[in-house]
Amino acid sequence: MTTPSPFIPPERTLMGPGPSDVSPRVLNAMARPTLGHLDPLFIELMDETKSLLQYAFKTSNALTMPVSAPGSAGMEACLANLIEPGEKVVVCVNGVFGSRMVENVKRMGAEPVIVEDPWGQQTSLQKVEDALKAHSDIVALAFVHAETSTGVRNDAQALCKLARQYQCLSIVDAVTSLGGIELAVDEWEIDAVYSGSQKCLSCVPGLSPVTFSERAVAKIQSRTTPVQSWFLDMNLIVGYWGKGGRRAYHHTAPVNSIYALYESLRMLKEEGLEACWQRHENGHQQLAEGLQALGLELAVAPEYRLPQLNVVKIPDGVDDTEVRRQLLKHSNLEIGAGLGEFAGKVWRIGLMGYACKPRNIDHCLAALKRALS
Amino acid sequence: MTTPSPFIPPERTLMGPGPSDVSPRVLNAMARPTLGHLDPLFIELMDETKSLLQYAFKTSNALTMPVSAPGSAGMEACLANLIEPGEKVVVCVNGVFGSRMVENVKRMGAEPVIVEDPWGQQTSLQKVEDALKAHSDIVALAFVHAETSTGVRNDAQALCKLARQYQCLSIVDAVTSLGGIELAVDEWEIDAVYSGSQKCLSCVPGLSPVTFSERAVAKIQSRTTPVQSWFLDMNLIVGYWGKGGRRAYHHTAPVNSIYALYESLRMLKEEGLEACWQRHENGHQQLAEGLQALGLELAVAPEYRLPQLNVVKIPDGVDDTEVRRQLLKHSNLEIGAGLGEFAGKVWRIGLMGYACKPRNIDHCLAALKRALS
Repeated sequence: MTTPSPFIPPERTLMGPGPSDVSPRVLNAMARPTLGHLDPLFIELMDETKSLLQYAFKTSNALTMPVSAPGSAGMEACLANLIEPGEKVVVCVNGVFGSRMVENVKRMGAEPVIVEDPWGQQTSLQKVEDALKAHSDIVALAFVHAETSTGVRNDAQALCKLARQYQCLSIVDAVTSLGGIELAVDEWEIDAVYSGSQKCLSCVPGLSPVTFSERAVAKIQSRTTPVQSWFLDMNLIVGYWGKGGRRAYHHTAPVNSIYALYESLRMLKEEGLEACWQRHENGHQQLAEGLQALGLELAVAPEYRLPQLNVVKIPDGVDDTEVRRQLLKHSNLEIGAGLGEFAGKVWRIGLMGYACKPRNIDHCLAALKRALS
Repeated sequence: MTTPSPFIPPERTLMGPGPSDVSPRVLNAMARPTLGHLDPLFIELMDETKSLLQYAFKTSNALTMPVSAPGSAGMEACLANLIEPGEKVVVCVNGVFGSRMVENVKRMGAEPVIVEDPWGQQTSLQKVEDALKAHSDIVALAFVHAETSTGVRNDAQALCKLARQYQCLSIVDAVTSLGGIELAVDEWEIDAVYSGSQKCLSCVPGLSPVTFSERAVAKIQSRTTPVQSWFLDMNLIVGYWGKGGRRAYHHTAPVNSIYALYESLRMLKEEGLEACWQRHENGHQQLAEGLQALGLELAVAPEYRLPQLNVVKIPDGVDDTEVRRQLLKHSNLEIGAGLGEFAGKVWRIGLMGYACKPRNIDHCLAALKRALS
């Protein structure tokens, strides 16, 4: 075996379901010299990163930090810390990521009570309330805020209200929502949230910001069984990420990825969270009008459509793979394929974070027009 | 809250227990434009990265890849995939990381049979054999090759031979050994190994290269219970990282960190694995002579001392914290504190990967001399 060549990737425009385009500012920040994970200067950066994440989540939760792994690990971190074996959890399923939550709940020896709705539609509040009424021993309600597989926004505020009403914790997948649409952790009284770095925050993939309410922390601290994963046990991680005093080594933090996250959060703060949501909405309007002009139809009703993830029906007779191949080859443009039930039936056009700008939308529409003509 | 300033870290020399200094080549590679995790060009890079990892591990194992999280998650990936609840595992403990393995084994509902040796000494082959003899139902032998908390090299080759002899799988922590000292996965018939990106590979922290033998894969495929972690389930991950055909989405790979790992592995291949081991040995000799000249003593016997992690006894009357603070402040030099039983008693001087070079060793010795005078 000879040494292979350096890897010089082309400059794609990433308009799929994530990762989204990463700003050169973030890439540059990430390439700065590595510090030790217990270096006092790195500890300061951790504190600043926590503050910025609190801003992004609209929370004052003390336990707010990035899990050192992708969103799927953030999902496990939230579920495995809050739920003990044998406990019952209502899980709302209307796409791939709801199903993934079910799979996680089962693997930790807990019992999912599944509330299912069709792909492309919202989770039914009535069904959720019926499930909460039917079982008196539900400890948590878990759902996906922005379902990346379908482009549907579930009504997080109303769902969390139901959770409070029925005295159970709420666990919210905000992987694709954080930074893209309104999410108000404290106001909506959410108990645990996990997100991803590579969606509307436009950071590199590999981190999962999480936040836990005081109720959630109380539950974690009063568990009678250990969290199944040592790596994801918040009781231990808090010794490293927690406020004040001496930081205890738990695992080696992905130092350079945290430089990147910090820079992407700085960009969010500079723009302002509400302005960022509005930019996603504006981008969506531009894209939706352009798609309509091309005769393409969105799969999700306007009332609960995600601006940052546009699910487009593939017209009859059009070759899904060939169109995406052409976009990639001729325009260096990535859009997403359908997942699960939607495979072969839809494209997923992401307008996330740094990628959500008129230039990219113009380019995407023009490239789609070429590929379809 | 105002937007905080950009984070511009100083250029430290990292000679602690890891992360080690990262080459500018690796940092530059990491800052290249992000590709989608299913982009055909990224899939090619994944294949090349696998080949380079096979080279580094000295294995032809098909299931060789980086876990998308730090070494602690690699530990869980190996243990949780190979061991089912209720099964018995011999775990060798002579430092922090052996204890962490025990903790992991317990949390997955399996039963650790602990073989304990004093900190700073090797795992006793006799004790391990006694444990394997005493229990007829041991499914695996798990141990740490290079114990980062003590600077001890355990005899991986002999331990794996015992595992084969007693028909159980071997699970090896090679976090600090990979690239620094001899490790021959196929020749030693190791069944599962996990490592870390941030030690002798001198890549950024956040990835855990792993490799599984065919025997290990057979065990994973014939499990009667699901792996507790969906995120770390190799049965699923292999659909994304496996050879050939269509790659199925599992989780979003940390794309840019894999650029970095690829570049660090290219550097290893250019130098040559054996030459890299020799460089660590040479660096250790230089450091050991210099420490002796300063009147400092190494805590581990020469026969099983790790060249890449030198554990130095703190002389009586010397203020541990103050010396490390001075090194950091006046020389931008990080060395490691003692962990666990060794806290306050030793320093840990890492000579790992890119950091292991005469210039750094000269600097470290001179800075220590100043700090101690």
